[in-house]
Formats: sequence, C-alpha cells, structure tokens
Amino acid sequence: MPIPEHNLNPPFNIVRLSHTELRVTDLAWSRGYYVDTLGLQVTYEDKEVIYLRAMEERGHHCLILRHAPVGEVGVLGFKVWSEEDLDKAEHWFKARDLPTEWVERPYMGRVLKTRDPWGVPLEFYAKMDRLEPIHQKYKLYNGVKPLRIDHFNLFSPNVDNSIKFYGELGFRVTEYTEDAETGRAWAAWMHRKGGVHDMAFTNGTGPRLHHVAFWVPTPLNIIDLLDLMSTTGYVDNIERGPGRHGISNAFFLYIRDKDGHRTEIYCSDYQTIDPDHEAIKWDLKDPQRQTLWGAAAPRSWFELGSTFEGAPVTESDLKSQPIIAP
Amino acid sequence: MPIPEHNLNPPFNIVRLSHTELRVTDLAWSRGYYVDTLGLQVTYEDKEVIYLRAMEERGHHCLILRHAPVGEVGVLGFKVWSEEDLDKAEHWFKARDLPTEWVERPYMGRVLKTRDPWGVPLEFYAKMDRLEPIHQKYKLYNGVKPLRIDHFNLFSPNVDNSIKFYGELGFRVTEYTEDAETGRAWAAWMHRKGGVHDMAFTNGTGPRLHHVAFWVPTPLNIIDLLDLMSTTGYVDNIERGPGRHGISNAFFLYIRDKDGHRTEIYCSDYQTIDPDHEAIKWDLKDPQRQTLWGAAAPRSWFELGSTFEGAPVTESDLKSQPIIAP
Amino acid sequence: MPIPEHNLNPPFNIVRLSHTELRVTDLAWSRGYYVDTLGLQVTYEDKEVIYLRAMEERGHHCLILRHAPVGEVGVLGFKVWSEEDLDKAEHWFKARDLPTEWVERPYMGRVLKTRDPWGVPLEFYAKMDRLEPIHQKYKLYNGVKPLRIDHFNLFSPNVDNSIKFYGELGFRVTEYTEDAETGRAWAAWMHRKGGVHDMAFTNGTGPRLHHVAFWVPTPLNIIDLLDLMSTTGYVDNIERGPGRHGISNAFFLYIRDKDGHRTEIYCSDYQTIDPDHEAIKWDLKDPQRQTLWGAAAPRSWFELGSTFEGAPVTESDLKSQPIIAP
Amino acid sequence: MPIPEHNLNPPFNIVRLSHTELRVTDLAWSRGYYVDTLGLQVTYEDKEVIYLRAMEERGHHCLILRHAPVGEVGVLGFKVWSEEDLDKAEHWFKARDLPTEWVERPYMGRVLKTRDPWGVPLEFYAKMDRLEPIHQKYKLYNGVKPLRIDHFNLFSPNVDNSIKFYGELGFRVTEYTEDAETGRAWAAWMHRKGGVHDMAFTNGTGPRLHHVAFWVPTPLNIIDLLDLMSTTGYVDNIERGPGRHGISNAFFLYIRDKDGHRTEIYCSDYQTIDPDHEAIKWDLKDPQRQTLWGAAAPRSWFELGSTFEGAPVTESDLKSQPIIAP
Repeated sequence: MPIPEHNLNPPFNIVRLSHTELRVTDLAWSRGYYVDTLGLQVTYEDKEVIYLRAMEERGHHCLILRHAPVGEVGVLGFKVWSEEDLDKAEHWFKARDLPTEWVERPYMGRVLKTRDPWGVPLEFYAKMDRLEPIHQKYKLYNGVKPLRIDHFNLFSPNVDNSIKFYGELGFRVTEYTEDAETGRAWAAWMHRKGGVHDMAFTNGTGPRLHHVAFWVPTPLNIIDLLDLMSTTGYVDNIERGPGRHGISNAFFLYIRDKDGHRTEIYCSDYQTIDPDHEAIKWDLKDPQRQTLWGAAAPRSWFELGSTFEGAPVTESDLKSQPIIAP
Repeated sequence: MPIPEHNLNPPFNIVRLSHTELRVTDLAWSRGYYVDTLGLQVTYEDKEVIYLRAMEERGHHCLILRHAPVGEVGVLGFKVWSEEDLDKAEHWFKARDLPTEWVERPYMGRVLKTRDPWGVPLEFYAKMDRLEPIHQKYKLYNGVKPLRIDHFNLFSPNVDNSIKFYGELGFRVTEYTEDAETGRAWAAWMHRKGGVHDMAFTNGTGPRLHHVAFWVPTPLNIIDLLDLMSTTGYVDNIERGPGRHGISNAFFLYIRDKDGHRTEIYCSDYQTIDPDHEAIKWDLKDPQRQTLWGAAAPRSWFELGSTFEGAPVTESDLKSQPIIAP
Repeated sequence: MPIPEHNLNPPFNIVRLSHTELRVTDLAWSRGYYVDTLGLQVTYEDKEVIYLRAMEERGHHCLILRHAPVGEVGVLGFKVWSEEDLDKAEHWFKARDLPTEWVERPYMGRVLKTRDPWGVPLEFYAKMDRLEPIHQKYKLYNGVKPLRIDHFNLFSPNVDNSIKFYGELGFRVTEYTEDAETGRAWAAWMHRKGGVHDMAFTNGTGPRLHHVAFWVPTPLNIIDLLDLMSTTGYVDNIERGPGRHGISNAFFLYIRDKDGHRTEIYCSDYQTIDPDHEAIKWDLKDPQRQTLWGAAAPRSWFELGSTFEGAPVTESDLKSQPIIAP
Repeated sequence: MPIPEHNLNPPFNIVRLSHTELRVTDLAWSRGYYVDTLGLQVTYEDKEVIYLRAMEERGHHCLILRHAPVGEVGVLGFKVWSEEDLDKAEHWFKARDLPTEWVERPYMGRVLKTRDPWGVPLEFYAKMDRLEPIHQKYKLYNGVKPLRIDHFNLFSPNVDNSIKFYGELGFRVTEYTEDAETGRAWAAWMHRKGGVHDMAFTNGTGPRLHHVAFWVPTPLNIIDLLDLMSTTGYVDNIERGPGRHGISNAFFLYIRDKDGHRTEIYCSDYQTIDPDHEAIKWDLKDPQRQTLWGAAAPRSWFELGSTFEGAPVTESDLKSQPIIAP
C-alpha cells in the first residue's frame, strides 16, 4: 500500500503530542530514575503520583508517573489549537463510533478522552496550566538535560491501517519502511509539529507503547547520561545505543525502566514543516535503516513494549523480520 | 504600547521564512565566504548569481547571491501553505494599498511580490523546486555545517508598528524588549514556524536588514567556524560572539561579509508552537538581555545594516540607548 | 634576549605543578564558588580551611582555600620525582642564597619551602596522601567538571629573568611573546609535564599570581559554566572569554572570585613532551596572539592579579603595551 | 602474578611511542581511508609508500603506509630522550641476546632496530625531522581531526611476561585485568608519556598488533567520523563502538581497514605522570571493564589482529574467556 497524500485539511487541529501517563509499580524507584537520573522537573507530587515537565516546557506536565499494581500506559495526550477543535474532535470520533468522554484532569481545561480503533487511550485538550519558564535556570539542569517531550512510538499490528487513521487526523508521514516482498508498510514516522514525528508506528504485537522520547541539546548530553547511569546502578537499564538512526537521522539512546517502559533520548532530527515535504522510503532489509553506522538493534527492542490500559493486543499478520542483532 | 494578542486566525497562512537575495559586489569573494567557509551548498551558479541551500533543506534555495554594483538586499521570501493562500495574500496587501505583482522566479511557482508599509521587498510563494535530500551525505558537510535558514532580523524605525503589522499577518511575539521610560517596544522576536522567530525587529534607522541567521547543530560547530575563519583570512569579518543570548537563549556568532551583510550563526533556541505560548519581556537596560553572560555588543552591531533595494530609510524617533561595549 | 636552550639535565626532577593555597576573606562565599559552582571536590574542610581536588586527581589536594584577613596567595606547590630530588632541591636553592626550610604540611610527606629570587613562595614535595579514584563516579561531576590543575600564570617584572631562572630548573619554553622593539620577552609559557605549560610569565608589576588554571573535558563544559554562573549570581565574576588563545591554542574562560583571585578554565592544548620540541614565537602586536579570533582582552586582565604572601612587588621596566580592548 | 613495582630508573629513557609502519596491499584504498577519511596529513608519498602525521605532531611521521603483498606490521617505533639513550638501549638489548642493528631510515637520525623476546620488531631513535606546526591551520582539519598517535595495543601469548619485560624498560602499569581463577594478568596498560598507555597487552595468540590508536579532540569528532564512514562506503569497516571503556575511561571507536589493521579513535583518558600513580585492577568477568555502559565487544575484537613482519605467533596458554557479544 502506498503512503497516502498528506491531509492538509484535517478535521481538527492537533498542535503536538503533549504528555503521557506511565503507571509504575515502585514510585520511589521511578522518581530516582526519571527525576534524579534523567533530570525531569517535578511540578507536583504526592504518594501516588508525580507530575513532571522538561526544561523548556511551560505546560504543567509532559509525564505523569502514577503508582499502580501493573506497569502499563494510562493515556497519550495531545494539545489542540483551540476549544473549538476539541468539539470538532468529539464530533469526529463519535462519527466513527469511537468512545468519547469529557473527563476532569488536574491542571488542565476541558479534556476529551477517546480511543483509536485499536483501543489506544487518547486525550485531547486546548488548555493546560502554564508555568514560569525555567529554561534559563541553569542550576536546575541535571542528568540528560531533557528539553521537551518529542514523540511517541507504538507497536501496531497493522502499520498501513495506523498510517491511514492518523493520516486522516492530519499526521504527515516523513519517513517509512516498506517490506519489499509484500509492499506493505512496516514502520512509519508521522508529525504534526514540524519535526520527524509526533507519533511513529512499528510492526508488531499491539497496540503497545514502544517508547516515549525526550529531546536533549547535543549527543554529549546522551554520553553524560550513559556515564551517569553506568555508575549509579542503572547499567542494566541501558538497552540500545548510542547511535545515529538512518531513519530520522537522529542521535539516540534507548533505556528501559523497572516496569519495562522504554524511553528514547533523542536529538538532531530535522525540520519538516513544509506541507509538500516528501516522505523518505527505506527498505526493511537495509542495515543502515535502524542505525546509520550499521549496528543492529537487539531482539528486546523489537519485541518488548508497554501495554495500554484497557487495550487488548493482537499479533501482526505481517511476519517480515527486521535485521536483529545475533 | 503593550504587545498585541496573538492573531490565531491570520488572513493567509505563512509557513516560514524561506530565502533572501543578497546583492554582492564581488561574487567570487562571496562564494569563498558563503560556500567554502560557511559551507552552504551550491544548487545553481553562473557568472552573475549563485543559489544556495543548507544541509537539511529540500527547497531549491535559501540564499541567492547576486552580483550587483551595490551591496544591498533584494528581497525577503516566505513560503505559504497553499496556492489559495497566495491569492488571499494578494487581496490582503491590495486592500492596504501596498504594491502587489506576480513575478517570474527561477525554480519557483507563482510568486507574489509586494512590500511592507516601510518598503521592505517581500515575496510569497507556495511551491519551490524540491531537491534530493542531502542531510545524510556527510561528505558534503563543511564549514559551520549550516542546517537551515532560521530567521531575518530587521532594523525598524518603529518597532511597535512593525509588531502590529506583522502580528496581523500571524507572526506571534515570543520575546520582546521594552524601553521602561516610554513603555514602547525596543525590539521584538516573532515566529510562524515554532521557534523563537522567523522575523525580529530592532529599533534603529530602517528599514534595513540587521542579519539573516542559519541554524547549526551545536556550539562546537560555531567554535570550528571561528577557528577556520581566524586562520583563512576572515578574522576581520568576525563581529560579535560567541555567546549566549539572554533573549532566545540561543548560542550565537555574528559575522559580516565584504559588503557588510551580517549573518548570525545560531543554535539551541526553544519550541514555541503552542498558540498560548506567552511572550517574555526584557528591559532594555538589563545587561543579560543581549548576552546572558554579560558581555555587551559592540557599537557596530547596533548601527550597521544592509539597505533594501528601493526602500529609503528613516531614523527612529525612539532614542533610548541599549548597553554598548565601550 | 633569545630564549635559552632547554635544560635537559635539570638539578632536580620536578614532575609537575601540584597545588596552590589561596587566602580568602569569606570562606563560605569561596565554597559556593569553587565547590558548588566550579565543581571541585572537598577532601577536607573545617571552619578555617577547605582542601579540594579535581575529578581525575588522586593526590589529596590541588587547591587550598584558607580563611584570612587579606586575599593573597600562600604558596605554589610542585611535585618532584623522589625524596632524593628534594634534597637536591634544598642544595640548589641554598647555593643560590634562597631561603630553604623543611615544613610540616597536613596530608604531605617532607615539604621543602623556599622562594624564587622575586620572593614567590614555592614548596616542593615527593609524597602526598593518595585518595581513591573518583574519575568514574559520574554522580560527583558538577559545575565545569574540572579534571585537574593545569598551570600557574604569574606577572613578572622581568620575564627574561624569569625564563632564565625557571629554565635552569628544567622548565622548557613552548611559546613566548617577544617585544619586537626591544627584543625582550614579554611573556613565556614553560612546562615540565608535557603540555603547553606548568608555569607562565606575563610582563607586569610582580611577582603576582595572574591565574591558576584547571583543565576541563571540552568547550561545552565551559559554556555550561557560563550559563550556570550567569544565572546564579556570578555574572560579574566573568572577566574574559570564552575564546581560543592564539598562544597554546587552548579554549579558555577567565573568571575572578570575590577576592580577585583569577581562575582560567582551559582545555585542548597540545602535547609537548619531546625534548627537541621547538618554542613558537609570537609578536606582542599580533592581534591573534591573545585570542585567535581577534577579540582583545580587557584592561583588567593585564593589570589585576593576586599578591603572594611576603613578596613585595615591583613594576616592570618593560613598558611595551599589548593590545587592550577599548 | 602481582603487578611489579614501577621501574623508576629504567636502563634508557623512552619518551613515548612514536610511529608504526603498516604494510598494505592496496595503497590507493589505504590513502582514501587514512588520509581522506580519517584526516591524517601526508608528509611524503610516492607509488610505494605514504608518510603521515597527525595535526599537532611536529615529527615527520607517526604512520607509514607501505605497499606490500601481505598486510602486516613492519615496526613499532619509539622516541628516546637522547643519543646517549640509544647507545644504552643497544647495550641493554645485546645483553639480553636480542638482535640489534643500526638502520637507515628516511627523515630520521640514528635508528636502532631490535626485537622484543616475542619477535616484535621495535625501533628507537632520538631525532626525526621536525616540520612546521599545522595545529592552527584549521583549513587542513578533516575527517576525525586526529591530533596525535596515542598508543599501541598488542596481543600477547603471556601478558605477565610482557608486563615484566616492558616494565623493566620503564613502562608503568596504569590499569590491568586479572583472571581471578589463576591470578594471572589477562591484559595490561602501560605508559611512558603520562597518559593511560603507550603500549597495552591483551591475552591471545601473539605477538600481533591489536590496534594503533589516535587521539582526537572530543567524542563529537568520533560521531562525525561514524557519520562520514557510514555514508562514503566504509560502514563495514566499523567494528565496535562508540562507547566508553571502563578501563582507561576513554571514549572509543574501533575500525578496521581493508587489510584488517585495526585503528582505535580515542579521547578523554587521564593524566598518569606521577611516579607513585597506582594501577587500577579490574576483574576479567566485570562487564563494565570493556565498556562502562555494559555492551560487550564482538568476537572479532578478541580474535583478529595484524601479524608482525618476521614474528611467528603462538597461542596463549591462558584460556580464560572475556565476555563476548553473542
């Protein structure tokens, strides 16, 4: 299936990905990991939940850590342009028989809760509490110096269908991987905010969250994080990297927390804001697709992910295998 | 005058700044400077003109160097979302009695030529020839490794009026400097594409181009450029920096070519895409406004600029002085 | 006067510069500056004194901050190869009628205290307490991530004579500045340990300590320090930089503490270990000598320094002026 | 066997490693690799041989590429302090019944050719032609911006014996790996010039050259090299890295040329100049020994190396296995 044309007139205006809720079984451990090691900033915390933002963000939170018996993902959140867009969104999801609900969320205005056709819990909002800028409070910079949330990557049991659905919502494909044998899409990167992606989809048992990514200033910050994790008890949480992706051209590191939630630390992708920005196609068997420098990703990277609350998973029927490290 | 509300429903959709034409008196010298030293890539050249793009750009050009008897600026170019936006733009400028003209430009589709109320030559287009990506052809990276054009900065004889005019066009203020005595704006940074600015205005004799800026990967690329310029005959073209701006938080360097055209090399500003992103106010007398680290800018930086073709200049009536290096 | 031949058979074997004692009038302030901001590690402290080491050092201290009524310099310390070298040193200084004394120092073995002909207090030792390595305890890295003490720079009222005296001790000139009019040396950089210098001399009222320097990993650490100092109340302590020296090719920053003691933060000089390594000559009027990129140093940098305990100063009779920022 | 005491009074004074000759079967290919890609500078070339130096070196060459039918290693070269040291060296090797010969070498003074007890061809000299400095000719910097040769690493069939032999020559152990079961040394790092090593030894079939290493300014230069090699046809020459070694704390990359000669690109080890600098012991089974971040080295890294001209190899009798990537 070819990549569809960009939908330049989407039914409502999604500005960008905004936040996610990770359910974690050991909140103290997670605080040590996300706050003391990665360097995210606490904007609220109590015994059950911690709200975090990155250094250049002025919205109240990009990551919610919530204590729970099982490590899964509560929701993926997106900011829309206006209150009117929220109403249009409700209309659009209802028209597709997808569940919609207006929910109360701390620090946020009206929030529309829904799910995509695979059951991924989504929420949309126009207003979140705005906080004072801290991007020039350099004393607070710590760990990997995370600047902002960058994207979500999801396992999808049918990437072609994911592209189609999110494409209708106005996400535009910047790069994708084709399985040459079947002609089907094996992975895709789609954006709203003008970078390589707000959301990506990878073929596999899903829906599951493959990772949430944070943007950092330079590759040296990622090297600093590796040195820090390696000498403070987190060496086993390092999964893959550092390296340069062929796709997206970004410098990356993948790490996994105690509950298996994967984080990508990421910098140096490129601007994609033009409406006529052409998607780049990669072949699944191109060894430089994953890592420009040639190193294959480990099996865990292709197989492990976080389930979404209330979303049963199904296997993909596309069985083509990427290149996996021996 | 307070900063106006963001205009979230502009009359037509400007995607981003796109390109400029610099008229230069010694094309060979300018080639040595912009191509061999800064590292911009030639996409077309003959004896009279050189078209250039930066490493991650797929549009045909972001900079045109045109041989001319006088070193001035030919035009500031902007990309709009669609052909329909071009027609809306024509209507809007005509309604304000500003000149409009459809002009032929190589490598571009329909081009609307106009001027702002101060005579700055502007052009708008929706389509420019798209070239093959070169962002992963690392052999081509050279000089400061320029990734993309980032913004224009103009001297304005009345910054409040510039803010008002460009604000109506949908440019949103991210940071500004107030003259505490008069309450007037002394400088402003305004964006379309989600960074700190596509256009900035600085109080002074104008309209003149203060500088065009290019985005580079990290501060180390700027240090590399300084080392290169210092040892290849360009040491006198270094005007200011390196440093960190208080405003925009960007790491910067300013250089000036043989004709006096100023270029900023720039990295590490922040994302401003939210429609409710609040502007940051600075006081003209805050010494960390210009340079977070405290060093004042030289007098030349406040006084010298490039005139626009066909646009006579007037002095500003706002005489407040910034902090100038002794 | 020409630069003398390297003395390849010095009277005793000085391994490297080792430590200095800075007398400070506000120990709490100095702790905030050297420990919390620069990132040096405390190895001992009480109400009167703080001992510090840098991240890759295993000797007990490279910097002693001692509370005192006046901000001056207590001593410059050097490590020699063996106990036998200490005895040779005593003999050598005595033979020149310079004062010698065996003194008790905490954390150190036998210490020979003496003075150079201008009264600079020097001490030599072979053994200092060795501490556990911390260079891989990345959690401790902080501030500018100082790795090791690198060199001392002194104002000298007669640089030719300083070169001669320290040259006899085996310090080898790597670079020097000549005053073209008189043919006299205006500044010199001399090493024992295989970098550009352990000690440098600059023409001026002396003897005074111009600065003590610390080595850091990359220019980005210096940029981080500038950001940190600028936003934690230390912006006025930034004196000069960042920049690249013509001499030594090092990337530098100069900062001054509350008592006027100057520190250079420094990286990226070169290896000079060969006994036949030739000195590089610079002209005092070469604008790229101070800063490869052309920016002149401020007047304070040429005039201000720290006196040594018990060492009266005299003016230099060489009145040639370097290039000073207006 | 415990690590022997540092020999602080060696029989002659070796200043540092200096150069090696690699025999290569395709000189044009090797020029593309070492000159156009790594960025070493040609100081002489003809159809049979290319002499190279790195950016801050003033000696005529650190690497000789010589066309030959078989890709092996011609010699390992070392600079000694004085002509007198050469004579002492001759005496010392003769006294051990090792072959000695005075040979003619272009660009060098007297050269003593000999072999260590395992047949490794060594040469010592005091004088090599000195060239003009190029460390500030930034236009010449290219590829990974190699600054200087840093060390040799050899496979040794008996590391304990290698330590003993080179220890007598004054090489001092900075770090070593012990096989806990047998108490034998499995690897050792030994220096003369004040860094972690001039020579290292790794248990294995030998003598063979494991790699020659070059020092570069920062980890970002290594990332640049990876990007360049990956997009200019050298992706298969990337063997291991980038990463941080536990041992030496250095940031590293390993690459192998067409003949199998391995190069390490290396930065950020530490100063070891003190005569009482203590060696750090690592356990062979410590997964952070090889790579602080936990990633194991590939099998090729432990098995492949370059033979020395005229030196037959033997297997090691120490069969303990390091951790190898699956």
